[in-house]
Amino acid sequence: MVEKRKPIPVEEAISRVMKYKTIADKEVITIEESFGRFLAEDLIASHDVPAFNRSPYDGFAIRAEDTKEASANHPVRFEVVGEIGAGYVFEEEVMPFQAVRIMTGAQIPQGCDAVVMLELVKELEGQERPAILIKRLFKKGDNISYQGEDTEKGTVLVKKGTQINPGIVALLATFGYSKVSVAKRPVIGVIATGTELLNVDEPLAPGKIRNSNAYMIMAQIDRAGGQAKYYGKLNDDFEACLTATKQALSEVDMLITTGGVSVGDYDYVPVILKELGAEVLFNKVAMRPGSVTTVANLGEKMIYGLSGNPSACYVGFELFVRPVLRQALFNNFPHLRKTKATLGVDFTKPNPFMRLVRSRVDYVDGQLVASPSGVDKSGIVSSLGGADCLMLLPGGTRGYEKGMDIDILLLEDTQGSEWPWSNIVASYK
Amino acid sequence: MVEKRKPIPVEEAISRVMKYKTIADKEVITIEESFGRFLAEDLIASHDVPAFNRSPYDGFAIRAEDTKEASANHPVRFEVVGEIGAGYVFEEEVMPFQAVRIMTGAQIPQGCDAVVMLELVKELEGQERPAILIKRLFKKGDNISYQGEDTEKGTVLVKKGTQINPGIVALLATFGYSKVSVAKRPVIGVIATGTELLNVDEPLAPGKIRNSNAYMIMAQIDRAGGQAKYYGKLNDDFEACLTATKQALSEVDMLITTGGVSVGDYDYVPVILKELGAEVLFNKVAMRPGSVTTVANLGEKMIYGLSGNPSACYVGFELFVRPVLRQALFNNFPHLRKTKATLGVDFTKPNPFMRLVRSRVDYVDGQLVASPSGVDKSGIVSSLGGADCLMLLPGGTRGYEKGMDIDILLLEDTQGSEWPWSNIVASYK
Repeated sequence: MVEKRKPIPVEEAISRVMKYKTIADKEVITIEESFGRFLAEDLIASHDVPAFNRSPYDGFAIRAEDTKEASANHPVRFEVVGEIGAGYVFEEEVMPFQAVRIMTGAQIPQGCDAVVMLELVKELEGQERPAILIKRLFKKGDNISYQGEDTEKGTVLVKKGTQINPGIVALLATFGYSKVSVAKRPVIGVIATGTELLNVDEPLAPGKIRNSNAYMIMAQIDRAGGQAKYYGKLNDDFEACLTATKQALSEVDMLITTGGVSVGDYDYVPVILKELGAEVLFNKVAMRPGSVTTVANLGEKMIYGLSGNPSACYVGFELFVRPVLRQALFNNFPHLRKTKATLGVDFTKPNPFMRLVRSRVDYVDGQLVASPSGVDKSGIVSSLGGADCLMLLPGGTRGYEKGMDIDILLLEDTQGSEWPWSNIVASYK
Repeated sequence: MVEKRKPIPVEEAISRVMKYKTIADKEVITIEESFGRFLAEDLIASHDVPAFNRSPYDGFAIRAEDTKEASANHPVRFEVVGEIGAGYVFEEEVMPFQAVRIMTGAQIPQGCDAVVMLELVKELEGQERPAILIKRLFKKGDNISYQGEDTEKGTVLVKKGTQINPGIVALLATFGYSKVSVAKRPVIGVIATGTELLNVDEPLAPGKIRNSNAYMIMAQIDRAGGQAKYYGKLNDDFEACLTATKQALSEVDMLITTGGVSVGDYDYVPVILKELGAEVLFNKVAMRPGSVTTVANLGEKMIYGLSGNPSACYVGFELFVRPVLRQALFNNFPHLRKTKATLGVDFTKPNPFMRLVRSRVDYVDGQLVASPSGVDKSGIVSSLGGADCLMLLPGGTRGYEKGMDIDILLLEDTQGSEWPWSNIVASYK
């Protein structure tokens, strides 16, 4: 008997998944390990920046009022009473018509309120004590970086849940965070099923294909910020699959299986979920590829039955696993970033289900243009390599034409979207 | 005495750097380690895909000609002579009006040339031998994925030098690459100089700042695909700096120092380069920030004297280090990806030098719009955290207005540009 499944819209499927929150955990790591991780706490300025009034240039610190009368014809003479390298402090008070040689970044000495760049002074030679001439007026504050002018102590610089990029690493260092509190990477179990699967290092055999989904998903988990735990590939054997699923569930934060989700005689996922007492959120989605995707929940753990078909598996991960994973990383923009783009080719054939086409974005005069990265047939892997976005072509009775406005999801973007699934349309410009 | 330096245009500076090729090396790693690395060889299809004619659906394999007379009113009866799970092969020849139950992905049995989806047949019950009814015509080839229809054996699927994404991992697995030849990650030494620098875990002190550049650069190296080796921070001491530089140069593929590149009394980079006998490609670039960037070459090694100023240091890395590093990863698009965008704010103040403004890209109705990610003052780190692109505002005597077309460089893009530096302009739409 063929089980009848009712497909639900993609938006509805994601909504159901997002009702479940996987536990988010913290851990403390060193700043050297922090690149690419997700902040578990707001990054707060622990002091003013600059922390003191400082010189942005090499030059001479002076009292601006002493240059009142200075001009090209009437240069004013300053006695150089000291020198401050960056990192040193000039301890004395600077008096009228005195100057202190100051290096980039050094603290402005007491009494001074302007810096004259090195190129703008004439150093006098053959004097008893070093001296310079200044030929123009300087105002109070000229060439001074004031304490706190960039950032005041206590400012939230980067929000919790943000992925740490090189700029954020610089901020962590500046504010003394040699240890960083980051989200623990959720552990996601991966089980591939299918008697047709060969290991990657096995030679091809009649009727068999190599297991590519497990490796692909492990890379997707890595890209999304999680940690993959591979439980190997299993034949279509109910007892073996059930045992492996139970074992994995006891060790991971979420579990992904690929294959066995269809309505064929060897598709054991539905029975296993029943046996486990998991709540099935849906087992059919109105999308191509990936319509037979199944998602279930057992206590605090999500169980994903992704299709054995590589493209469907890929899309299923990005739509349903990624946002849950990102939420567990404290991220507030857990979905793939959705944006508008111009459709680069015709899609004449209508499809009742929403299509997610693996595509590549081009930037043409500042405009995003999306075209398929390969032949879009769901059994096909070659288009996956070049894809950096997914087109969203709403289901319906008509096709789409080159030049139309469509929605796309960016696969390699670092920012993400809060809730990208409202109002997906394609329209004429 | 102030040394006179002649600034050269940014494009010219990059041209000079790109004339030097750092040695690119290969290594073999496992597929599990391959995500994010760069292919050292073209990825070639080692067999046809599909490798055999297969069924994309669960259903029954039949001979299409036997359905010639089939209709709703005159269903045709087929005897079910066997069953093929995915991964199994049906050894016998299928005869007229025989059908074989076939699972998704399984090999089409000899004699069959069409698959009827499970949902479209009526299974007859209570028969001596299993049988089905088919109620419509099927054509030869219906629901068959033909051998090689996705990809023919020998096809170059992904070019050498491409960064491995999850889709490429799937391809590697499909074609049996359990070991992958990838570019060795060049080792890049990092030395921070400046007596004003504190370690990240030291408390703030008068006149001092924490060393943020070294950590930032190490993350930039990581993002670009290299491997950082940190030689610590040094005070402005000529002998110590020279010794560390020599030591580092004997151990790394390229070397980056930060600080000490200006014309101040403690700026030892020029003297050290002279002492080493390095060829200085340039020591001043007509850009803000980062005008005092110095790049030199010694044999097969590049030596970068980046500014001690965080923003200048960041930009100097992305413009001058990244492309050389990416070339050493066999990558043909080593520069940051350049594209057009709409300027999101006014920049009224003209600057004789080209400005590179740390910015954030927004997608507004499929159009890229770039706005500064923070206050753009070169001493300021807080804007680095939110930057995902650099605006290019050509030097000149006029400012720029919101809504103009400008060029930007994408920091987080995975694709890159071949030679992004021709014809940088800003114009009214």
